[in-house]
Amino acid sequence: AALGARKMEDYVLFLALLASTLLVGFVSVILSLVWVFHYRGGLSWDGGSGEFNWHPVLVITGFVFIQGIAIIVYRLPWTWKCSKLLMKLIHAGLNTIAMILAIVSMVAAFDYHNASNIPNMYSLHSWIGLTALIFYSLQLVLGFAVFLLPFAPAYLRAVFMPVHVYSGLTIFATVIATALMGITEKLIFSLQNPSYSSSPPEANLVNCLGLLLVVFGSLVLWMASRPHWKRPLEENTKVLSAIGGTPEGTEVESTMTNSSNADKSDLRINTEAARKQNLKFDEAGQRSTM
Amino acid sequence: AALGARKMEDYVLFLALLASTLLVGFVSVILSLVWVFHYRGGLSWDGGSGEFNWHPVLVITGFVFIQGIAIIVYRLPWTWKCSKLLMKLIHAGLNTIAMILAIVSMVAAFDYHNASNIPNMYSLHSWIGLTALIFYSLQLVLGFAVFLLPFAPAYLRAVFMPVHVYSGLTIFATVIATALMGITEKLIFSLQNPSYSSSPPEANLVNCLGLLLVVFGSLVLWMASRPHWKRPLEENTKVLSAIGGTPEGTEVESTMTNSSNADKSDLRINTEAARKQNLKFDEAGQRSTM
Repeated sequence: AALGARKMEDYVLFLALLASTLLVGFVSVILSLVWVFHYRGGLSWDGGSGEFNWHPVLVITGFVFIQGIAIIVYRLPWTWKCSKLLMKLIHAGLNTIAMILAIVSMVAAFDYHNASNIPNMYSLHSWIGLTALIFYSLQLVLGFAVFLLPFAPAYLRAVFMPVHVYSGLTIFATVIATALMGITEKLIFSLQNPSYSSSPPEANLVNCLGLLLVVFGSLVLWMASRPHWKRPLEENTKVLSAIGGTPEGTEVESTMTNSSNADKSDLRINTEAARKQNLKFDEAGQRSTM
Repeated sequence: AALGARKMEDYVLFLALLASTLLVGFVSVILSLVWVFHYRGGLSWDGGSGEFNWHPVLVITGFVFIQGIAIIVYRLPWTWKCSKLLMKLIHAGLNTIAMILAIVSMVAAFDYHNASNIPNMYSLHSWIGLTALIFYSLQLVLGFAVFLLPFAPAYLRAVFMPVHVYSGLTIFATVIATALMGITEKLIFSLQNPSYSSSPPEANLVNCLGLLLVVFGSLVLWMASRPHWKRPLEENTKVLSAIGGTPEGTEVESTMTNSSNADKSDLRINTEAARKQNLKFDEAGQRSTM
């Protein structure tokens, strides 16, 4: 009963954090729209500043908000009864949408620069932003090839999983850092009279937007990195890896690193062979690396 | 023998990454000095731009490089024979040095602003940077009180450890993001003729410095988050937690989540009580949360 109460408390904490994350992300998107419509002349696609304005709106909507949701989608407890394949498709689909929005946002910036004779790719913001988009696309293609297509052996998936998780979270953090640089640039360039340094309302609004992006990123990283909030293992994966085999077409997931799962399972890993097998996969492809 | 060869390979990989991290961090510090001395008139403490120049140099040296080393200091295998207390003192000492340098760097920025009648605290860079310094100081004080002073019960340490690890890595990433914003600001303000957008040598040099900071951060986060590169558990911690007790004055560390360690140990956790005890601490204070 005490364990049940603690689990319920933990579930309520998860829901509170999820609600906060969604709220902070949603408010960020709204603030980017307020910035663009109230202070910067709205959206258009004509090479003018209205076209540039798609850049912050699409980056914050797609490359930050949707990417953040894609990262924590496996953590939603009510999806654990869905098949792993369906969840992978949702994860990949959300990331694909984010990538497309990020690409369109960059086209908007380049188009605007070209129409206004502003050089491209001179700033640190542009260098890191383009690098992040390239790594993000690479991550998506590799993730698709290794985890969604049925060809990769379980061994390869196990080895690649910690790299995939690490790269995903690092790219996500880098994207937020790049957004902060972009906000800094845009406020300095567009606020002239009154200047950024005299703190007009637009400056404070957009600074708050920047703070919210950091809060959003921190919430996503916390939720993604709690080991007891991970999706439980598939029963068949568990059985097969406990007896020393690896099922075709599923990730190798260690039962020893997932306590809530081990708790629920009727399986006891008692044989020396099974223990060694598990330790081996622990080393090779532990899920809870980040 | 095959296991030994794999361990040696893994050790060589660790050393290569450590050498790369130190090199990238060292080159970043050098580049900040080249920037300041070759392009920005050097260092001084007279309210002029020479005083401001301490800001990037001290941030990159202390708040980025030394903080990064403090994060991975427990990972150095040759320190595993040293006492945990000594390593905690080194970890806390390096973070204290980093904090002092960060404080001095901010004093330099404020002094320069005040002498030149530039407003303080108007930019997103300043908002996030000051917030990061406050959280960093709080993290240091709380870490000292909970993990170094002998008063906190093992239970509290176990609960607080994942929060400490998460906060540390998140603050570190935020500091790097703030440095990137600072670089962006400074290049826009100080490069006027030729401007930042015409990509003079100084712009490219400092953009490269920004890229190196991202690489440095990524390397530190990778090394910090590999579960098999963590410091092995103290033998006494292991024995006591396996039999269901918690030793006074040591962190509760789970044997079940550390495969390399479990491998070396002669202990087998076979009783149901010990298993449950371990699962409980797993949930409460798993070391490998990030």
